[in-house]
Amino acid sequence: MAVEVVYRSSRDLERLFMDKAEADRYDKMLELAEALATVLHKAVPSLTEQQTEDVGIYMARHRELFAKAFKSSPEALSELPTDDSAT
Amino acid sequence: MAVEVVYRSSRDLERLFMDKAEADRYDKMLELAEALATVLHKAVPSLTEQQTEDVGIYMARHRELFAKAFKSSPEALSELPTDDSAT
Repeated sequence: MAVEVVYRSSRDLERLFMDKAEADRYDKMLELAEALATVLHKAVPSLTEQQTEDVGIYMARHRELFAKAFKSSPEALSELPTDDSAT
Repeated sequence: MAVEVVYRSSRDLERLFMDKAEADRYDKMLELAEALATVLHKAVPSLTEQQTEDVGIYMARHRELFAKAFKSSPEALSELPTDDSAT
């Protein structure tokens, strides 16, 4: 038996990482997902909390492609994996 | 009476512009909105067509802020106008 270090994001206490960089990436993804969910909930009030969360997480997981799409290239979104839904 | 030139996006035949640059911007906004609606519909199947359209248009209208948020700064979204919903 031994004591070991694990890492987690304060935004999701259940998910533990052995690697700090990986925990950092996960935390950053959740930060963006939460920010997106908040603004979308205000902008489109008919969305349920689950829907804004799903949309936020999905977009945050693919943030590089969405960054490209918003900056200048909507066609970047065609590179999104097709078998990958948010739920 | 006189003949005059007006411009429109082929994505929305109803909206006419006197200024070509403005019509271009509108067309680019709709292009991004449609691309977003398409991928979100696949990613979160519970969204209605109206919801994906609303989300797409809202994000496309504020594309510079969302570009910043996705690139590196989720806090950029706090600059979104608060009185501005998609509907």
